[in-house]
Amino acid sequence: MAHIDLGVAEHAHPGIIGLLRYRPETAGPLMDLANVLLHADNSLPRGDRELIAAYVSSLNDCDFCASSHSAFAAAQLPGGADLVRLVRLDGEDAPVSEKMRALLTIAAAVRSGGREVTPESVERARTAGATDLEIHDTVLIAAAFCMYNRYVDGLGTVAPDDPRGYERAAVSVVESGYGR
Amino acid sequence: MAHIDLGVAEHAHPGIIGLLRYRPETAGPLMDLANVLLHADNSLPRGDRELIAAYVSSLNDCDFCASSHSAFAAAQLPGGADLVRLVRLDGEDAPVSEKMRALLTIAAAVRSGGREVTPESVERARTAGATDLEIHDTVLIAAAFCMYNRYVDGLGTVAPDDPRGYERAAVSVVESGYGR
Repeated sequence: MAHIDLGVAEHAHPGIIGLLRYRPETAGPLMDLANVLLHADNSLPRGDRELIAAYVSSLNDCDFCASSHSAFAAAQLPGGADLVRLVRLDGEDAPVSEKMRALLTIAAAVRSGGREVTPESVERARTAGATDLEIHDTVLIAAAFCMYNRYVDGLGTVAPDDPRGYERAAVSVVESGYGR
Repeated sequence: MAHIDLGVAEHAHPGIIGLLRYRPETAGPLMDLANVLLHADNSLPRGDRELIAAYVSSLNDCDFCASSHSAFAAAQLPGGADLVRLVRLDGEDAPVSEKMRALLTIAAAVRSGGREVTPESVERARTAGATDLEIHDTVLIAAAFCMYNRYVDGLGTVAPDDPRGYERAAVSVVESGYGR
């Protein structure tokens, strides 16, 4: 049960959903940010960006965000759920491109703390073909999920075990992105 | 020097300032969120909300954010810079109200990880007079600064030592809040 009274039936509005309804003033910028980072046009494919979000959420042990963004990544990646599972097990040695391995390594460093990102890790990503904007967005996606994860768990919201809810949400996110 | 080419003279645009200019699409929601959390009307005074931001940034060892929000808090609190210094040294035993000590304890827990927030710490804040919305906003301010701090340091931006820049910024933030 959430730490505060969200005024909704929690199992119908799990994780961040109930929080967004509770506080529309913060929901707006939170969803706008997610939409720019994960859904708007970008040289980094949507599936890869969702994979970074799922990986960081998994490292942060946030069940709701990890399950949600794993479903959103799986729905937008040729490798599907199997690939997402391998990345969550070991992002730095997963069967993705060297560029994505380098970006996942940066994301894991950001999760530990901003100062953990080294010039060498950035150079490795650049050598593998990452642009400055892709490196910027990787850092901000990882940082943003350090926020979303703490928001969802810090207020003690529920995370359903049933994967079907996350898969239904994926259909909407793939089609329409993150709306207010 | 920042890890990516921000296209600006970094010493004229330190910390998050250069990042906001580099990527206006993410700057918008990032500033909208800061404005709702730290400047918009709220039963929690602006100085107290900036104090939570300064405290979390200090725990995260983010010089630019800690210096900025310490200046913004000092400018809006009767206790000024001396009080901010004491809170940064030990937020859970600082000379603030029991309600603020309870909220700072929740903020420190969120910083460590969302699951660190206990029902007991929430109950303590509530007993000391905190509303559910104030508890919600404390959690989200702490979570948001786990993002801003990692964004600023993860991209290797510079943090000036001279306090005057932060004090000048405080004048603008106190008057106008966080604008796009």
